[in-house]
Amino acid sequence: MVIMSSPLTFQPVLQRIAEEIAAAPDRGRPADYIPALAVCDPHRFGMAVAELDGTVYGVGDWRKPFSTQSITKVFTLALDLAREGDELWEHVGREPSGNPFNSLVQLEYENGIPRNPFINAGALVVTDRLHTRTGDAARTLLDFLRAESGNEQLAINKDVAASEATRGDRNAALGHFMASYGNIENPVPVLLDQYFHQCSIEASCADLALATGFLARHGIRSDGTRLLTQSQAKQVNAIMLTCGTYDAAGDFAYRVGLPGKSGVGGGIIAVVPGRCTLCVWSPGLDERGNSVAGVTALDRFTTLTGVSVF
Amino acid sequence: MVIMSSPLTFQPVLQRIAEEIAAAPDRGRPADYIPALAVCDPHRFGMAVAELDGTVYGVGDWRKPFSTQSITKVFTLALDLAREGDELWEHVGREPSGNPFNSLVQLEYENGIPRNPFINAGALVVTDRLHTRTGDAARTLLDFLRAESGNEQLAINKDVAASEATRGDRNAALGHFMASYGNIENPVPVLLDQYFHQCSIEASCADLALATGFLARHGIRSDGTRLLTQSQAKQVNAIMLTCGTYDAAGDFAYRVGLPGKSGVGGGIIAVVPGRCTLCVWSPGLDERGNSVAGVTALDRFTTLTGVSVF
Amino acid sequence: MVIMSSPLTFQPVLQRIAEEIAAAPDRGRPADYIPALAVCDPHRFGMAVAELDGTVYGVGDWRKPFSTQSITKVFTLALDLAREGDELWEHVGREPSGNPFNSLVQLEYENGIPRNPFINAGALVVTDRLHTRTGDAARTLLDFLRAESGNEQLAINKDVAASEATRGDRNAALGHFMASYGNIENPVPVLLDQYFHQCSIEASCADLALATGFLARHGIRSDGTRLLTQSQAKQVNAIMLTCGTYDAAGDFAYRVGLPGKSGVGGGIIAVVPGRCTLCVWSPGLDERGNSVAGVTALDRFTTLTGVSVF
Amino acid sequence: MVIMSSPLTFQPVLQRIAEEIAAAPDRGRPADYIPALAVCDPHRFGMAVAELDGTVYGVGDWRKPFSTQSITKVFTLALDLAREGDELWEHVGREPSGNPFNSLVQLEYENGIPRNPFINAGALVVTDRLHTRTGDAARTLLDFLRAESGNEQLAINKDVAASEATRGDRNAALGHFMASYGNIENPVPVLLDQYFHQCSIEASCADLALATGFLARHGIRSDGTRLLTQSQAKQVNAIMLTCGTYDAAGDFAYRVGLPGKSGVGGGIIAVVPGRCTLCVWSPGLDERGNSVAGVTALDRFTTLTGVSVF
Repeated sequence: MVIMSSPLTFQPVLQRIAEEIAAAPDRGRPADYIPALAVCDPHRFGMAVAELDGTVYGVGDWRKPFSTQSITKVFTLALDLAREGDELWEHVGREPSGNPFNSLVQLEYENGIPRNPFINAGALVVTDRLHTRTGDAARTLLDFLRAESGNEQLAINKDVAASEATRGDRNAALGHFMASYGNIENPVPVLLDQYFHQCSIEASCADLALATGFLARHGIRSDGTRLLTQSQAKQVNAIMLTCGTYDAAGDFAYRVGLPGKSGVGGGIIAVVPGRCTLCVWSPGLDERGNSVAGVTALDRFTTLTGVSVF
Repeated sequence: MVIMSSPLTFQPVLQRIAEEIAAAPDRGRPADYIPALAVCDPHRFGMAVAELDGTVYGVGDWRKPFSTQSITKVFTLALDLAREGDELWEHVGREPSGNPFNSLVQLEYENGIPRNPFINAGALVVTDRLHTRTGDAARTLLDFLRAESGNEQLAINKDVAASEATRGDRNAALGHFMASYGNIENPVPVLLDQYFHQCSIEASCADLALATGFLARHGIRSDGTRLLTQSQAKQVNAIMLTCGTYDAAGDFAYRVGLPGKSGVGGGIIAVVPGRCTLCVWSPGLDERGNSVAGVTALDRFTTLTGVSVF
Repeated sequence: MVIMSSPLTFQPVLQRIAEEIAAAPDRGRPADYIPALAVCDPHRFGMAVAELDGTVYGVGDWRKPFSTQSITKVFTLALDLAREGDELWEHVGREPSGNPFNSLVQLEYENGIPRNPFINAGALVVTDRLHTRTGDAARTLLDFLRAESGNEQLAINKDVAASEATRGDRNAALGHFMASYGNIENPVPVLLDQYFHQCSIEASCADLALATGFLARHGIRSDGTRLLTQSQAKQVNAIMLTCGTYDAAGDFAYRVGLPGKSGVGGGIIAVVPGRCTLCVWSPGLDERGNSVAGVTALDRFTTLTGVSVF
Repeated sequence: MVIMSSPLTFQPVLQRIAEEIAAAPDRGRPADYIPALAVCDPHRFGMAVAELDGTVYGVGDWRKPFSTQSITKVFTLALDLAREGDELWEHVGREPSGNPFNSLVQLEYENGIPRNPFINAGALVVTDRLHTRTGDAARTLLDFLRAESGNEQLAINKDVAASEATRGDRNAALGHFMASYGNIENPVPVLLDQYFHQCSIEASCADLALATGFLARHGIRSDGTRLLTQSQAKQVNAIMLTCGTYDAAGDFAYRVGLPGKSGVGGGIIAVVPGRCTLCVWSPGLDERGNSVAGVTALDRFTTLTGVSVF
């Protein structure tokens, strides 16, 4: 429910948030499992808001590309859902997991069907199915992000992808485990290669706020064509709200009150249905893997503007 | 985000939903763990919508009292939160559980701190704390529901409470288990007595739609006084959306897209922040304990009216 | 397999072990959940060996009564098995648990059937069933221990029993939890009272070594009558070996190589089938609840004498 | 404890058991996850007993080679333990698991350290370490089995190994999962190749009864040299008793009362320390993966001869 009086420009709000963040000392720590992420400066901060018509406001490092990581799970979900529809839900659930993002415990109790598309196991299933349906999941994703952001420079960082592969044992375990239940269509090494490439796409706050726009426009892409039905767009938003921030989804809903999805690169996208989309980036993470300054900035945004779904 | 054109009366929408439900053969089965619930007719159906100003629309059995059961967890949460504020969150979490409502597994892994206030363990903690702060949790709750609904006839069904007590071993286990971690303030038998009485309050769809109004009015009670801060009201709505329908919260968000809370008596309340509140009742449950016709009716309501938080 | 040449007196071996233990500084810490155990001096040490004919050898505090605690689970198991036979195994399993002795996790996955008779949940089931069959489980147990030890002074320490009751929430949770699955016959408070009294029996190493004799004599009591069939005696020994020392059963089998059962009072009983029985006592426990000096003493005993089942 | 009077030949006992088994209709079902096992005739039955001096008695198909599968875990454990000693126990535990042999749940809770060497995860760790220390784990194992059995014809069935590899996703998941915790030394594909080859060794009851002899001779090989210390041999026997038959170890100890290890090929080896070793084979399995006729035959053997460790 948007209660801001219009006309309104988001610029002053972003400015104020950036000042508050600059004054806040605690930034958390960057992900350290691969060197490319570990070297990120936790004092980096950028934030962008895109209106439905593509107008973008930004502050700080809002045009600087960063590693999108798990944020891409939203787009592969939408791209696969657009292709196969409800059949996807026979292979991945829609419930919050209550366990860490890379846990195998629940997967075993539930016979290889991941709880939702945003834990790693679920994202592997979605990428696997998108790969089967398109022949190149990572390429399909990259093309989509370029088209929606209008930025043809978007690219996969091959060094990061290679780096992910060297630390990929947990994801390999998830892939083989689900394959043992018959829930993976492609060879596990092929799937992992796709997955690591998809996670290694780099994009800026501006790019991602624009690319998320279809979820605020009830399924309509930037060129006016429809990617998702209105109902599907609502469903993706619902899954973002309940499952989008690892095992802190309840806390995120409680504090921010918007559908959102975070990545360990320090980015978070969020949706105000019917109104606008946001992307914030700051590489320092809390112990649950969400950007410290990013969550704070979104919290402040909803408080200052009164924007929230609740 | 409300997209209905106004002025609008909800009556035709309710009428249409009632007709569709009447034509749907599958109603699920009433809860059978106590006789008072088992004898309910699964073909009963009622639905009410209350506007912010207290105007109520209804259809079917919308004025017939039923057993509120877990729906009361929303009100005890609000009543305790109003009294002690954030201190409550040191004793109960805000994350979806991913496990059945009466599971002990997660409770053990997390040292006696329940995942959220809407699983049974969490509700016991909330009732325990409200009882300490008021001297009579069930009475405090009943007084609140009477005041908000304007119905002084609301009462606890003592037979149901007694019946619950005879089937109370699982809740007794939860209570003693948390007490072993020091997370219960009152003697477990006292707490259980309070809890079973609170669950046994009977109210109609009209009563509950009205009583839920403060959550759509951002914390303001029917008499204009404030129960919760705007932020707290938003937080309760967020917890309802992520945790309100047992381990089907993700599915409920996906289908209905509103903060909601169900009970095994067959009732469900839902909130459209800033716009209205709903209550639907039909005693037949699905295998996860939510009213079959109730979820369908809410799903149809959001589809027909375009009302949803997403 | 007994490889000691006979005739042999165990006295020199016990003497040597006592000297080694006296020289060992690390004794662990007494259980501290109730005052009566917390005040025990961890430097106390006693050990007794009873031959099949009732000859007893001892060293140190071998005649000093201590709190038997979980050691009594062996005797209630035998007493119930003697009465109802294999029907017991429909209500409690015979497999190691892989979880702490008072865990509820596995109990939930296995629908209220405890893994074995030596975790608390399983012992509660056994006591419950013995109580149904005798009208007074604790009294039946006490009479048995008096008869086998020949010590009419054996008694329940009522203060300890009362103390246990004040710290009994975890056991109350286990009892109610199993009752919710229909696996408890008596009212939970009655069962807990029996259970806490049974745990509070005090006996010395000499008493317990003698009382355990029927397990080395293949089921024959001290008066020559048969309590268990040969097969049942073998089965109780097997369960002691695989499940007798909490979640350290594998380690105990690995180090000591004898069927044994420990208690948090610091006692451990062990059986050399066909040859002798042992009881050792020292109140300091390791982090898994087994007597530090007790396990060491039994380890040394099997090493020095060559006695082991392996 | 051996209570048979000697001299004694085991032949009449084996004969009688074979007759009883022939008369028993229920044989369970062969493992069906790979074709080579699925085609085995469940009415096949062989049994051999080897005395300490290498004298072998046999009945039925006791000279027919079968797929050894998990039985080999005993030998790789001994071969690695002989090389690295107690350091192994920092990488794998010695406690019963309480979970199925290929479960990942406990592995996650315990940070990649498998519970014991006989669940698949633990066997992978042992093979991995033996491979590091020998350069060829499967070859080292094959050489050992040939030497102890005196049968130079023993060989790896390459078709079975290839077949295992096509069904190897669960083991691949276990391997990568432990690698993610740093508990695997070799590349996972290398390890899996070694593991599948080791499982695919074929040997007869006579071969395996002889090869197990060192565990009854307290660590001494057939040529009189020492493989394990007396203490290590005792420890391996203890682990077989507590963990040797998947999640039926308690039941096996209860019924048979001997250290034993089963494989899904239908074989079981067992040890009577200081007296003899046994191997039985019949391909039909119970629901926990142990040979139905095999367990029955061992149960009858201990009953008829009075041989048992209890």
